[in-house]
Amino acid sequence: MNRLYHFALSPYCRKVRLVLAEKRIEVELVEERYWDKEADFLRRNPAGKVPILKFGSRMMAESQAICEYLEETHPEPALMPKDPEARYEVRRLTAWFDDKFNEEVTTRLMTERLFKKLMGGGYPDSTMVKAGARAIKYHLDYMHYLLEQRRWLAGPELSLADFAAAAHLSCLDYISDVDWNRSETVKDWYAKIKSRPAFRSILADQVPGFPQPAHYADLDF
Amino acid sequence: MNRLYHFALSPYCRKVRLVLAEKRIEVELVEERYWDKEADFLRRNPAGKVPILKFGSRMMAESQAICEYLEETHPEPALMPKDPEARYEVRRLTAWFDDKFNEEVTTRLMTERLFKKLMGGGYPDSTMVKAGARAIKYHLDYMHYLLEQRRWLAGPELSLADFAAAAHLSCLDYISDVDWNRSETVKDWYAKIKSRPAFRSILADQVPGFPQPAHYADLDF
Ligand SMILES: N[C@@H](CCC(=O)N[C@@H](CS)C(=O)NCC(=O)O)C(=O)O
Ligand SMILES: N[C@@H](CCC(=O)N[C@@H](CS)C(=O)NCC(=O)O)C(=O)O
Repeated sequence: MNRLYHFALSPYCRKVRLVLAEKRIEVELVEERYWDKEADFLRRNPAGKVPILKFGSRMMAESQAICEYLEETHPEPALMPKDPEARYEVRRLTAWFDDKFNEEVTTRLMTERLFKKLMGGGYPDSTMVKAGARAIKYHLDYMHYLLEQRRWLAGPELSLADFAAAAHLSCLDYISDVDWNRSETVKDWYAKIKSRPAFRSILADQVPGFPQPAHYADLDF
Repeated sequence: MNRLYHFALSPYCRKVRLVLAEKRIEVELVEERYWDKEADFLRRNPAGKVPILKFGSRMMAESQAICEYLEETHPEPALMPKDPEARYEVRRLTAWFDDKFNEEVTTRLMTERLFKKLMGGGYPDSTMVKAGARAIKYHLDYMHYLLEQRRWLAGPELSLADFAAAAHLSCLDYISDVDWNRSETVKDWYAKIKSRPAFRSILADQVPGFPQPAHYADLDF
């Protein structure tokens, strides 16, 4: 059986879970408290990071390498367009979320509000929280700008870029850090993603000590 | 004319320069002091990062999205294998260097030893320098381990993974932070890369205030 070693509120794990679910690839989820860096975990991935996908007999790491692999070996339904220019845009935006958004928003807010408590690292640093809260506004505005021109973030079709973005936003939504009133357009986009069957497992996630807020799994939030 | 907005000691820019040169795509290099965040620069790339490739009439950002695009549109010489498993390994290792190696080694050493001086950010923090110097050893050992089994980092053929690794190592070599005596195998690999015509422009780089060390451009270092 395929197996995904993951942490529920890791955006990289969520991106891979969404791709697996969308492509109907069955996988057993195994929770990994990656910050404990246990020997078995490091044997699975010398990089010491989640996600790790056990796929057949292979151990695979690095979410983007995994997603591209799944797209090449399980092309249906397609999460990448065929045209190189369009593929570029999907990859650019995926990297935008996994690099820039992560650095400016996800890491700051999740580390301060959640990981410090989970891993025992002291109190949230309010300067960091404020910086993250300020940065997410610009990112929501950028998404608004893109979605005013396009049906999905990278073009006319749903793609990996939408899943990358939704992976980050859904983690932040779990800690109630997304102001959905900032843009109706972005909210509509998220509602469409949220209602996909592939999203169900993510809406069912529970992290001990951090109860789900009511709106999180609500499709008409 | 195609144009690459870059900074000489940015590993992401170097990766793109290597790919362009290897594929014989001519490009004019324009130095970008990206930390000044000038308005023109932010217009070219809202992410405020280098590299930015002006390719025809397009402005392209995100090094990995650019490299995949160049590979798809200019397939010769190939920097990615055909087989999905082999492609996965190239992407995994590229991400290893651009994510993990960067975080643990490049950022620490380059920030402390070079960027602080260039951007005016005070004295190097010796704790960070030490942590970077310790981490690079493990990474060189990992490369040694891979190269004992394979001709190139990701398999039998030269690939994007070698260029990603060489991009990071060559930046660190410019500030003399690579101990080439740690592994003959890794040193031989780097000598092979260094002697490629695609590497010439990188060996000619000069950063004002930071003279090239003698071994940097020496093919028999
Ligand atoms: N580039 C990696 C990033 C994965 C990543 O950073 N995962 C985090 C959890 S969200 C992690 O495992 N961090 C542990 C560490 O960096 O030591 C990917 O895309 O898979
Ligand atoms: N994910 C980007 C990373 C590029 C990057 O981080 N570039 C650095 C220079 S090495 C930069 O421009 N940093 C400016 C910033 O982060 O604001 C890529 O692969 O192109």
